[in-house]
Amino acid sequence: MLTQDDTRTPAADTTRPTRALVASTEVDGTEVYSPTGDHLGHIDHLMIDKVSGRVAYAVMAFGGFMGMGEEHHPIPWAKLRYDPTRGGFTSDVTREEVEGAPSRPRDWRDDRAWEESAFSHYGVTPYWI
Amino acid sequence: MLTQDDTRTPAADTTRPTRALVASTEVDGTEVYSPTGDHLGHIDHLMIDKVSGRVAYAVMAFGGFMGMGEEHHPIPWAKLRYDPTRGGFTSDVTREEVEGAPSRPRDWRDDRAWEESAFSHYGVTPYWI
Repeated sequence: MLTQDDTRTPAADTTRPTRALVASTEVDGTEVYSPTGDHLGHIDHLMIDKVSGRVAYAVMAFGGFMGMGEEHHPIPWAKLRYDPTRGGFTSDVTREEVEGAPSRPRDWRDDRAWEESAFSHYGVTPYWI
Repeated sequence: MLTQDDTRTPAADTTRPTRALVASTEVDGTEVYSPTGDHLGHIDHLMIDKVSGRVAYAVMAFGGFMGMGEEHHPIPWAKLRYDPTRGGFTSDVTREEVEGAPSRPRDWRDDRAWEESAFSHYGVTPYWI
């Protein structure tokens, strides 16, 4: 019989290139880099669509990112790729993209019109399609 | 400008029936009930397929569940439905299903044959299809 700890994954396991499955607890806090290796920030948490079971956004914390204060921005999950060689995620998201994203209404999580404009802005297929 | 806390969702927001998006930090620890309202356990964490961006499993903690000790079992995410009236998830997973699930190899996260047998056992479409 497996003990309860067998389903827990040590953080080091995220560096295994063959692993497709990752624990939500491992993703939260994982660093995000640009394709050239610059540190962009980290993932604070994921936003999951309960209906489809898809990850919709990674809410990224940009800490003093190129002059911006510490801010959280929902980035479409499709903009991130796990890079086992860095032990983190890679994204080609740019300062211009983040700063130029459509302004978020307070109820952005319920605002499909805002979501459509955001996915259009980032140029990736919406999670609900 | 939004403050960094605007993307954080208070736990109470999970009870809003119109919300399809939920934060990973809210899902972890959420209670799971049977269709008749019995408490089955709680979600310890999610397992996410990095390639497709889909939630693959909810690793559920069954604490003293009908005679079993506290154990963690990966349940296909498709077996759970969010129930805003209970503020938790509902699942029709039964003791027989959990106890009768295919034995997990230690490297179950990398074992597609085991995953196929598990999804077949639970009678839901695999997350990779």
